[in-house]
Amino acid sequence: MPSAARQAPLPLAFGGDYHPEQWPREVWEDDIRLMREAGVTAVSLNVFTWARLEPRPGEYDWDWLDTVIGLLHTAGIAVNLGTPTVVPPAWFYRAHPEALPVTREGVRLAFGSRGAICHSNPDYRTAATTITTALAERYGDHPAVVLWHVHNEYGAPVLACYCDICAAAFRVWLSDRHGTVDALNDAWGTAFWGQQYGDWEEITPPRTTPSVGNPAQQLDYRRFADAQARAAFVAERDILHRLSPGVPVTTNFMVAPSQGHTVDYWAWAKEVDLVTNDHYLMTDGRRTHVNLALAADLTRSVAGGAPWLLLEHATSGVNWQPYNPAKRPGEMARNSLGHVARGSEGAMFFQWRQSRSGAEKFHSSMLPHSGTDNRIWREVTDLGRRLAGLADLRSTRTRGDVAVVWSWESWGAQSLEWRPSKDLDARERLDAFYETLYDRHLTVDFLPPTGLAGLDPARYPLLVVPQLYAAPLSIAADLERYVTAGGILLVSFFSGIVDENDTLHPGAHPGALRDVLGLTIEEFDPLLPGETVRVRGADGTLYEADLWSETVVPAGCETVATFADGRTAGGAALTRHALGSGAAWYLATRLTGADLAAVVDLALADAGIAPSGLPRDVELVVREGESGTFRFAVNHTGSEVKVPLPDGSWATVGAGAVEVFHTPRRTGPPPS
Amino acid sequence: MPSAARQAPLPLAFGGDYHPEQWPREVWEDDIRLMREAGVTAVSLNVFTWARLEPRPGEYDWDWLDTVIGLLHTAGIAVNLGTPTVVPPAWFYRAHPEALPVTREGVRLAFGSRGAICHSNPDYRTAATTITTALAERYGDHPAVVLWHVHNEYGAPVLACYCDICAAAFRVWLSDRHGTVDALNDAWGTAFWGQQYGDWEEITPPRTTPSVGNPAQQLDYRRFADAQARAAFVAERDILHRLSPGVPVTTNFMVAPSQGHTVDYWAWAKEVDLVTNDHYLMTDGRRTHVNLALAADLTRSVAGGAPWLLLEHATSGVNWQPYNPAKRPGEMARNSLGHVARGSEGAMFFQWRQSRSGAEKFHSSMLPHSGTDNRIWREVTDLGRRLAGLADLRSTRTRGDVAVVWSWESWGAQSLEWRPSKDLDARERLDAFYETLYDRHLTVDFLPPTGLAGLDPARYPLLVVPQLYAAPLSIAADLERYVTAGGILLVSFFSGIVDENDTLHPGAHPGALRDVLGLTIEEFDPLLPGETVRVRGADGTLYEADLWSETVVPAGCETVATFADGRTAGGAALTRHALGSGAAWYLATRLTGADLAAVVDLALADAGIAPSGLPRDVELVVREGESGTFRFAVNHTGSEVKVPLPDGSWATVGAGAVEVFHTPRRTGPPPS
Amino acid sequence: MPSAARQAPLPLAFGGDYHPEQWPREVWEDDIRLMREAGVTAVSLNVFTWARLEPRPGEYDWDWLDTVIGLLHTAGIAVNLGTPTVVPPAWFYRAHPEALPVTREGVRLAFGSRGAICHSNPDYRTAATTITTALAERYGDHPAVVLWHVHNEYGAPVLACYCDICAAAFRVWLSDRHGTVDALNDAWGTAFWGQQYGDWEEITPPRTTPSVGNPAQQLDYRRFADAQARAAFVAERDILHRLSPGVPVTTNFMVAPSQGHTVDYWAWAKEVDLVTNDHYLMTDGRRTHVNLALAADLTRSVAGGAPWLLLEHATSGVNWQPYNPAKRPGEMARNSLGHVARGSEGAMFFQWRQSRSGAEKFHSSMLPHSGTDNRIWREVTDLGRRLAGLADLRSTRTRGDVAVVWSWESWGAQSLEWRPSKDLDARERLDAFYETLYDRHLTVDFLPPTGLAGLDPARYPLLVVPQLYAAPLSIAADLERYVTAGGILLVSFFSGIVDENDTLHPGAHPGALRDVLGLTIEEFDPLLPGETVRVRGADGTLYEADLWSETVVPAGCETVATFADGRTAGGAALTRHALGSGAAWYLATRLTGADLAAVVDLALADAGIAPSGLPRDVELVVREGESGTFRFAVNHTGSEVKVPLPDGSWATVGAGAVEVFHTPRRTGPPPS
Repeated sequence: MPSAARQAPLPLAFGGDYHPEQWPREVWEDDIRLMREAGVTAVSLNVFTWARLEPRPGEYDWDWLDTVIGLLHTAGIAVNLGTPTVVPPAWFYRAHPEALPVTREGVRLAFGSRGAICHSNPDYRTAATTITTALAERYGDHPAVVLWHVHNEYGAPVLACYCDICAAAFRVWLSDRHGTVDALNDAWGTAFWGQQYGDWEEITPPRTTPSVGNPAQQLDYRRFADAQARAAFVAERDILHRLSPGVPVTTNFMVAPSQGHTVDYWAWAKEVDLVTNDHYLMTDGRRTHVNLALAADLTRSVAGGAPWLLLEHATSGVNWQPYNPAKRPGEMARNSLGHVARGSEGAMFFQWRQSRSGAEKFHSSMLPHSGTDNRIWREVTDLGRRLAGLADLRSTRTRGDVAVVWSWESWGAQSLEWRPSKDLDARERLDAFYETLYDRHLTVDFLPPTGLAGLDPARYPLLVVPQLYAAPLSIAADLERYVTAGGILLVSFFSGIVDENDTLHPGAHPGALRDVLGLTIEEFDPLLPGETVRVRGADGTLYEADLWSETVVPAGCETVATFADGRTAGGAALTRHALGSGAAWYLATRLTGADLAAVVDLALADAGIAPSGLPRDVELVVREGESGTFRFAVNHTGSEVKVPLPDGSWATVGAGAVEVFHTPRRTGPPPS
Repeated sequence: MPSAARQAPLPLAFGGDYHPEQWPREVWEDDIRLMREAGVTAVSLNVFTWARLEPRPGEYDWDWLDTVIGLLHTAGIAVNLGTPTVVPPAWFYRAHPEALPVTREGVRLAFGSRGAICHSNPDYRTAATTITTALAERYGDHPAVVLWHVHNEYGAPVLACYCDICAAAFRVWLSDRHGTVDALNDAWGTAFWGQQYGDWEEITPPRTTPSVGNPAQQLDYRRFADAQARAAFVAERDILHRLSPGVPVTTNFMVAPSQGHTVDYWAWAKEVDLVTNDHYLMTDGRRTHVNLALAADLTRSVAGGAPWLLLEHATSGVNWQPYNPAKRPGEMARNSLGHVARGSEGAMFFQWRQSRSGAEKFHSSMLPHSGTDNRIWREVTDLGRRLAGLADLRSTRTRGDVAVVWSWESWGAQSLEWRPSKDLDARERLDAFYETLYDRHLTVDFLPPTGLAGLDPARYPLLVVPQLYAAPLSIAADLERYVTAGGILLVSFFSGIVDENDTLHPGAHPGALRDVLGLTIEEFDPLLPGETVRVRGADGTLYEADLWSETVVPAGCETVATFADGRTAGGAALTRHALGSGAAWYLATRLTGADLAAVVDLALADAGIAPSGLPRDVELVVREGESGTFRFAVNHTGSEVKVPLPDGSWATVGAGAVEVFHTPRRTGPPPS
Repeated sequence: MPSAARQAPLPLAFGGDYHPEQWPREVWEDDIRLMREAGVTAVSLNVFTWARLEPRPGEYDWDWLDTVIGLLHTAGIAVNLGTPTVVPPAWFYRAHPEALPVTREGVRLAFGSRGAICHSNPDYRTAATTITTALAERYGDHPAVVLWHVHNEYGAPVLACYCDICAAAFRVWLSDRHGTVDALNDAWGTAFWGQQYGDWEEITPPRTTPSVGNPAQQLDYRRFADAQARAAFVAERDILHRLSPGVPVTTNFMVAPSQGHTVDYWAWAKEVDLVTNDHYLMTDGRRTHVNLALAADLTRSVAGGAPWLLLEHATSGVNWQPYNPAKRPGEMARNSLGHVARGSEGAMFFQWRQSRSGAEKFHSSMLPHSGTDNRIWREVTDLGRRLAGLADLRSTRTRGDVAVVWSWESWGAQSLEWRPSKDLDARERLDAFYETLYDRHLTVDFLPPTGLAGLDPARYPLLVVPQLYAAPLSIAADLERYVTAGGILLVSFFSGIVDENDTLHPGAHPGALRDVLGLTIEEFDPLLPGETVRVRGADGTLYEADLWSETVVPAGCETVATFADGRTAGGAALTRHALGSGAAWYLATRLTGADLAAVVDLALADAGIAPSGLPRDVELVVREGESGTFRFAVNHTGSEVKVPLPDGSWATVGAGAVEVFHTPRRTGPPPS
């Protein structure tokens, strides 16, 4: 795969998922006309069309797709062409019912929805690669096709299947991972509750058990299921690379943890030519623009900082949440440009034209049921014009100010049963720390726990670990090197506890972080729901904490704040361990809002990061590159605000508006 | 079937379900004696007796039933004779385990409860018609048998089975409905998510799927399951018609939506000779007498206005709700006579004698565990006397004042997944509008959406559509004709959206109602839980709304009230579209209580319906016919009240009492 | 079995579950050293080791266990040797997948947890007795082995399996119990809902049904499942008795109802040589020390008053509750000694050394992850010393002051579906009455409903029946004899309603208690959630009640308090029936806290039991025997308190402390 393909192919993509198969032929011309009116530059096509392309086994109907791609190409609209392998045809399932996935309880799921796939099933694998090959042979060199869109949202709606074919594949995967049954017994700690295996054939998926199942078995099964789906992707990708050389291949991620736990995107990002992401606002009462910023920063991070592409978001309300309010005027543009600010090479939507049938007909679209005389269409066409004017920023990169450690694997491990408190939630801490940094107007780069070797304090003066329950012992050395070199590390409770097999690191908690934090934990002491404790800061200020307390035993660190009451009263609640030129902070309880911000501010000051002086809910994000510097000012408030420009002047940004200030790269001498 | 059989055969039926099979022979004489003491005129018999009648395949034991029917007949007590097909014997299931129904998840349900029936199962069908034939041959001309009671509460506790026999039957049913697979693909919108079928054999019931299942498939399956049960009823009914000519056939309905979604009673009512209903107060915190009135009005409506029969209600508490309080003194009589006021030809109970064993032994009865020295028995005997004195009202009809549209199909469609808000609930709006009309002392006739052609404004000056999500396009013309002719139409939000396949009507919402309402909806904007908006009326009064808002675009209507705040602030919340001699009102959000009443009052005034002047919680309902006019005054309050009589005088009705004022039909000249 | 074996073999056992199989050989020596440091006298060994002992079918590896037992023996530590039959090896399940239990819904549970056993499975039975035989042959006369620990916590995590093998076994069990199918039909009341059986082969387990299943079938299935597990225990026990004569056999119970409904311990206690119990504090917001006292009193009661042994409790937090806080300093000792006060011959823990892997690694232990430099280890070693000094109290017995009736069978029956109120909860009433008695510093002996014949008022002046829904008619005579002889009986509502088949006793409620209480109940009238009624006492005091009201008809009793409002206003709420030298009280509603205490105080005064004068949350419990009298004063308060000694003096007990005052049995003349 030529490296050139790893750059974004679509200069400021603007468009949506296009489903001509849902509409009669006469609508297509109208679609193309309106796409041009809206400034659409690209569409995602062919995602759910297998049954249309191959109505009977081996009989293909290409005509309609030839026509559609032709119409789009003529109109100058690029195509992100799907491999429609997320929904095999009904005839396939009739022939291969065992390709339907089985739940943990043994229920074989039915056709009639989407994503009903057992990725271990050999018949599915064969059928998927066959249709992909046929597509690639037909359109691999079509000039309209600029990107391949494999499958759809791997991991959703189901990742793991528990059928017998999977059981057999799991055994093979386990023998690759562990080598011997004895090694597996060690890794899984099967001596506990007498679960030792004597032969690979004895091992099954972690189906429903009477009491709690072996945690390492569950973690390995999640890895296995992830790997099976990834292998299915790679099989399709390799065909496309071979038959459609030079055209990058992607699959749309759902990176935002708020959208649920799906797959390990650190691993998946290595396999795609371009990271693309689907992002939807969750109406769960949180500040949705903060969550959007987190999702965009995290997507850029899994892309290694390279430009990425927002492949799906919504023009207004969705349909699959319990309550689906509409977006407010201007909100869609702030969302779209907010993604662009944080690295997206455009803004695409699900979907172009609102469906009349099926499960998602109440999902908003670029072209609503009510046609073009409505707010959404006007905002869509405005956005199209806006993006057309920003083509220069392609290939520029968003620069993060501070770093945060995030791990899907650790999150999954922490979420298993029988933790000290059922309310422990790595995502909640991720959100809480991110929100604090967002409110300090800092752009965040995320790092995996395996990506901390050689971390440069000059690049990231602050590194935050919100909750990294499962961490390899190796991070101890990485973090010590970072801190010693001047980094400021801020770790929150229940981090560094177990290894990748959910086995506790030897000795006192937190096994992987004892040395860098300069402390041990004698005992966890979770709080009951509704129970709070107070934390007294160095200046006597009292903060309110909940969920968690513990008995910290300093071993080199200094105590900065103590538990003022509760069962751990008098013990350390916040510590700082000076180490070399840096320091490692540890927060032993859950603070939120302003109380958490006070702690983060201490670490920021320690890291020499000064407050920005900007108002709350105003983002200032910078993309830089060959074409210069683009400063995005996103004003989420209802008032006009002032933002500073590099030349020292202040610019006005209207209520709810987004302004992009472009400073071209200077090639001559500076003006005197 | 002679039309005479469609009239109520049991002049003021009074009695209950009688289960002599639960008691030794010596108790039967005591039962008869006490029935006579209580004034019992009829009992329902033989509902759960298959295993008693046919203890081994093909071996019948009729003696006990001959005896019981003989005893009843001698005592002058009429028999509503059951076909016991709701619980086949254990030996049947041992021989035909595949007759047990299968859940959507694939669990085959077990024997040991009731209603464990797959209505597609051919062995069940054969066995059911065989026992029905044997019964009809033996008792078809027995003078005691005045009504046949087929099965029990079709649709409860389970309606749909998802087994493979059902799958095959579903395919046949689908080919009858849709003709071709292509037509089915169109109807189901299978182009969405690539679900196109190529062959009938590929289609399965809507079993558990990974994500949301095809909505049209789900709706058709509900129709199919309803049709299978109905076909089972019709098979038994036809045998009874043949072998017991002149004796009407019924099956007990559960019409009240508060008791759950079961079957489509508009369709079922066409198949029975007499509509009978089971009604139980739901202790869900609502005003139970209002819900009772709704149930009775709806039962009368499915009976086409003809007299019907309350076949089951409770003398006091039931046992199957989470909490089962006793009825207060007098409450049973108000309940019973309230049903009679609204068209029932009597008041029957579940059950005569309280059971000592089984699942319902804590359900109240006419004859309690404690015998006859108790309040319940005294009230039962009082009611028997009361009803005996009201025999003249038989065949009179209750006349509705206003009409309300109700559709089980639309309710079912609206209740599927992925609606704009999960709290959308057609039944809640039905209850809310009904309660408002009840509090205006208006008697309501319900109409199906397919029953609006030729609707006469002189008959129903007001027509209310509380929430008719699924509506055929045909109602547009029906409603336009009604309004143009002078009718006042009041439509609430989320009505007229889709057709019978859950496909959106083309163009802007509300597809089927745009023209008659004179508006379009640009976008739905559901409110979050706890979120409210205010609505400003024409006079500046502010009302509080929740759940729903939307952007209404007037197109001919005038705006009567606007959203005062929220995301749709300034837009129309209540509109009126003058059309011909009438007007169509539209309410675009959810108002409740007095706020909703204010809107309904506007429509009532528009329709020329004046306030009654009666106190709250006092019903005045009229039955009219050959025998004259019966005015039922039901006083649910704790105080004596006055009610107006036709001669202009006022009568007193005691606290908690029911009075019936009979005005015989005048045959001579009026008094001067 | 020699009767000598029924005494506690382990004078003040102190130790925990020891799992050397989870650790490398080199750790074992360290374990032994630390056990000696802590004063450990006994460990439970070999509970989860089947796969370790028999890695392949028929191949045994005894070496490691020989070594461990040898090390322990050398160190003077006694062994409670497990039969590891609670977790068969993975190879066993591969060979016999049908030994995995099946849920009521038909899900066959998987290996990978623990307790996945169908006790009806013949292959499991054979395998379990084979490994038990092998163990007994090898270690039956080992001097270290002082107790056999069969299996683990029978009934948890699953008791009943619903597979076809169980179905066949159930039929056999039913024919033993009922004799004929007709008798079963009578007992199960199958005439209700037409469920009569004609042949044993038609009967199945009470698998998932469409509506509520037959209650008697459910109760018999619970009895059957309990009996199957008990038979499995007995099979192992008999092998051990034969091959290891003189060594008592136990299995660890979970007697506390707060830990869930498992098996009928009244029946199980008859089968063990020594009653042992596992007890864990439930962090459900209740006073945990009160619940602990209840559990200990109940364990002693099922042991018939004989000494028993606390086999598992926790040094601090557990891991399997939603929230698992740590114990406070001193709390573990109060817990441990509280059990000893109430009859335990020691205090053992789960587990010795905290696990690094598996489901319970966050469960506290005697030896924590952080080693020996921590509070837990210090408190453990303190407790070891403390217990070593109390060896004299072995074989003494704790004497109860009052009696309370408790029945697992009745609790199970009451908990079935379709009761008058879903919030009826026998355990809640048990806890409420127990707490009231605890706060009066009374030690409670529990009695089964079948253990009331000949009950002596001089032994128990007060007998409380908190809620005995299911009671045989026979208790009527037992209670009448007790009351007539001078006993004071206090019965709470919903008692004496049904027999063992959930069949209502004939006539008015409460069938089994009408005569002794001198009343009938005309009708139950449960209250809705949030609804309260007031009760007016004889002196006009008003008490607040909820959940329940009813219409009581006095028939010999006097009314002591009445319902002051609500639907039953004016009726009796508390009655007293003088009968012979005693009296029977009846409370017809739910009172809690001080309101309930006021009623209990009336009954206590009636019984001549005077207040203790001790402060709240201070226990004073007495063990007596050959070695004298041991008065345990457990101070749960944060202040120093005074407690009375037999010599009339008062002793001081420090905040949170436990003091044991030993008065040796006087052998000479009393001092003058």
